[in-house]
Order: sequence, then structure tokens, then C-alpha cells
Amino acid sequence: MAAEVLTLLAESDQTVAVAESLTGGLVAAELTSVPGASRAFRGSVTAYATELKERLLGVDGALLAAHGAVNAQVAAEMAVGVRGALGASWGIATTGVAGPDPQDGQPVGTVFVAVAGPAGRKTARLRLNGSRAEIRRESVRNVLELLSRELRENARGQDTEQNGGI
Amino acid sequence: MAAEVLTLLAESDQTVAVAESLTGGLVAAELTSVPGASRAFRGSVTAYATELKERLLGVDGALLAAHGAVNAQVAAEMAVGVRGALGASWGIATTGVAGPDPQDGQPVGTVFVAVAGPAGRKTARLRLNGSRAEIRRESVRNVLELLSRELRENARGQDTEQNGGI
Repeated sequence: MAAEVLTLLAESDQTVAVAESLTGGLVAAELTSVPGASRAFRGSVTAYATELKERLLGVDGALLAAHGAVNAQVAAEMAVGVRGALGASWGIATTGVAGPDPQDGQPVGTVFVAVAGPAGRKTARLRLNGSRAEIRRESVRNVLELLSRELRENARGQDTEQNGGI
Repeated sequence: MAAEVLTLLAESDQTVAVAESLTGGLVAAELTSVPGASRAFRGSVTAYATELKERLLGVDGALLAAHGAVNAQVAAEMAVGVRGALGASWGIATTGVAGPDPQDGQPVGTVFVAVAGPAGRKTARLRLNGSRAEIRRESVRNVLELLSRELRENARGQDTEQNGGI
């Protein structure tokens, strides 16, 4: 999935940046495991401490104070923030509860993934089972799948626009 | 090694932040694989694109232009920069060539790791063999070992100071 996403990006001269919470570096590590990743991967921010989501990624502090870090809007703002801060075409983000303990009133396995791109942002809520390692791995897979879908839709949208303009 | 480092930090109410280049998120992922990592792990920055080492971590742009990113001084400045930006007691950093191709005139397997802490900074040069995955894994192990050694020396230094003051 990482190789496929990087190929889709590189083919269209686009780049991605990553903001991580519960995955803690795993999304970036998965992307950079692919040789030549630097063609499309700009970098990542792991904002593990909640205040860093505000300080490094520009997530609304009032939102964090009111709802905690495990939240769809927080995921979306992380993706938007890292896209801007790292100057990438796309930003993707993960936030959630890997366990073993609940966090911010949310049960283990509650995860939000988000993608922000040229045409806006999209989020998905996941309810995952399994160990801490499994929840983190599944979160990585899901956020890369979300990006892959958006990249394909965006490419189709551009084709349609071009055809419509002829 | 990750669990040991996190325990050493938490026991002394200290924290760590990570700046990564060739390891691309793996150091952070290794630390956050440990349950309860948030007690001592603040977060990380993967500055994969060379310009982000300057923009996000404050590495000297003239240094990067003159010597490239695979350099002991760059590793040290990454560690100092992430320590400051993320407000951690300690900063650790990796930069180097994971392959398959040489980079900035350095052969595959040339890696610099660095640690910055209350008493200054330290760097080590590694010459690693093996695949891209092996070079990245060994780099993770080495930077965590360097931090572990510094934490123990720092703790001993503080004990000595305290004894000296009696």
C-alpha cells in the first residue's frame, strides 16, 4: 500500500506529509521503507503530547480542551496542519486509542484517520480490535487506503475537468 | 532498548523528542510501541526533505548547502533543534544513507546519530552493512543505545554532584 501510494503521488508530481498520534511514527516508517520514498514523501510530525498537536500542527486548543485528542475534527486539523507546515500536496493524520488503557473518555480501538488535499479534507472513524500493535498497524493501513482512494478520485476529477474543457 | 530508555527517563521525570532522517519514523515508532510511552516521549519530526531540516529543526542552511545532510554536525543540530522545538529534556537524531543509492557523496551505510541533553551534545558515526531495512534498524538501535549511555552518565554525574555537596 505504501509503495502504491508513493507511485501514485510521484506520477503526478505530488507529495505527502504525515501527522501521527497513536501510530507514533509507523505511518512515516512504512512510507520510508520504500526505496526512493523521498520523491514524494516530505516528512512527518508525531505530536504524541496533546499540547504539541496545537503547537506544531495548529490544531485548535479549545477543541482539544473540550473534546480531547481522539476526535474526527482533531484528525482533520492535524492533516490540514501538517500539509501546510511541511508544504505538501496532501496531509494525512491518525489519532486514537491504541491501549492498553482508554484515553479522553474513548475506549481502546477508537481511531480517527484523515486526509487533507487540494479539494478539501475527509475523515473516517475506525473501531479496531486486537492488541496495541495490531490497532496501530490497522490504523496505518487505513490511513494509507484513505489517501489512495482520494488520490484516485482526485485524478479522475482532474480528467473529467480536462475532458469537460475540450 | 526502547522500554529501558523510557523507564530511565520516566524515573527521573525527564522526556525525549526525536528528529529523524534515514530512519523516517522508525525511532519514534519503536518508542511508542511501548505501552505508557507518553509518560516520557513528547513526539518526533521526520525531516526527510533536506530543506525541512532547516525549516522545522533549525539546522544551519549554509551547513546543509556546503556538506549535505549526511554529516555529524547536521545530526547534532537536528537533536538540539527537536529538543528545543518540542520542549523535551533530551533530543536524539539520525541522518545517513539507507540506500539503495549513495547520497550527498556518502556511501550507503554511512550514518550519524546524535543526542542533545542538559549537559551538551554527543554524536557517533556508524558504518553499517546490509539491506535498507537492516541499516535503518541498526540506526534505531544505535541512537537508543547512545541515549541510554548518556542517561546513565548524566544520572551518575548528578549523584556525584549531590555527594560532593554534602
